[in-house]
Amino acid sequence: MSKKKKGLVIVNTGEGKGKSTAAFGTILRAWGRGMRICAIQFIKSEKGKWGEVKAAQKLGIEWISTGDGFTWKSKNIDETTALAQHGWEIAQEKIASGKYDLIVLDEFTYPLDFGWLDTNEVISWLIANKPPMQHLIITGRNAPQELIEFADLVTEMKEIKHPYKNLGITGQPGIEF
Amino acid sequence: MSKKKKGLVIVNTGEGKGKSTAAFGTILRAWGRGMRICAIQFIKSEKGKWGEVKAAQKLGIEWISTGDGFTWKSKNIDETTALAQHGWEIAQEKIASGKYDLIVLDEFTYPLDFGWLDTNEVISWLIANKPPMQHLIITGRNAPQELIEFADLVTEMKEIKHPYKNLGITGQPGIEF
Repeated sequence: MSKKKKGLVIVNTGEGKGKSTAAFGTILRAWGRGMRICAIQFIKSEKGKWGEVKAAQKLGIEWISTGDGFTWKSKNIDETTALAQHGWEIAQEKIASGKYDLIVLDEFTYPLDFGWLDTNEVISWLIANKPPMQHLIITGRNAPQELIEFADLVTEMKEIKHPYKNLGITGQPGIEF
Repeated sequence: MSKKKKGLVIVNTGEGKGKSTAAFGTILRAWGRGMRICAIQFIKSEKGKWGEVKAAQKLGIEWISTGDGFTWKSKNIDETTALAQHGWEIAQEKIASGKYDLIVLDEFTYPLDFGWLDTNEVISWLIANKPPMQHLIITGRNAPQELIEFADLVTEMKEIKHPYKNLGITGQPGIEF
């Protein structure tokens, strides 16, 4: 079988830690090689001042937050759906622009899993519009089966041991957010 | 149960992708918050010019490569063992110095798994010498059970789908190394 290069569709899913963090690691690696990067966060709020947002600002990486916090707890589902659709419109524009070597759709599985966006429509759009050499990383729990079938590389992050549950340890700035 | 803060011992293990990459993502996040970081790679060769090494150089993060490439294929096992021990000595010095908020021992499970270093001795040393607030991330396959028991947070990266095996796609610079 001949080896070929192509832009990968990568999905990091599962209940464990490291889904978004591995995407940020790939961003760091790609940035080290001078690649053009855009990250779009679908759930986390910009107001959270997460370590990755600060890092991206320092690195000059385009970083867009479209969510309003942990929106699966949202009481206004129309607004939440609208936000997800708005985020996807931004993502479509960035993907189709051809200006990026790597695009990260962080926590994008949630709008799909919750039905705020139609997974098959998203995949059809990607097939028609994603530049062939562009890498795309999608993170989040419960990746829909259609997305897993569409992706080139899928990793499940599985929790073996977690400090919050067992030891009463609080979240650590810089390490977990 | 009262919540407390402490330096976490984090292990990223399993057969899937994302073990080192999630550690690099944590480095990026920590760097974004101005934390003091040191990464020590036990297997990959500096000669590899990996994307993460380039990124670390650009960011001013201390990055030390102690391995000689993929050493489990090494024919000179004495040299390989000596390299692992030398790497661990460097790690001990960095950990005990108290100068870092986050230390990454990348691919450190291999010297443990292959018996080049004694896991129980390493753990005993860490218990006695690691500053309490310092975070430590250890990556690599086949994390020894003693290490898993010692760690605060353990994630298994599990391969669901991999492009090399199924599709004849070659490794992508900036994405996978």
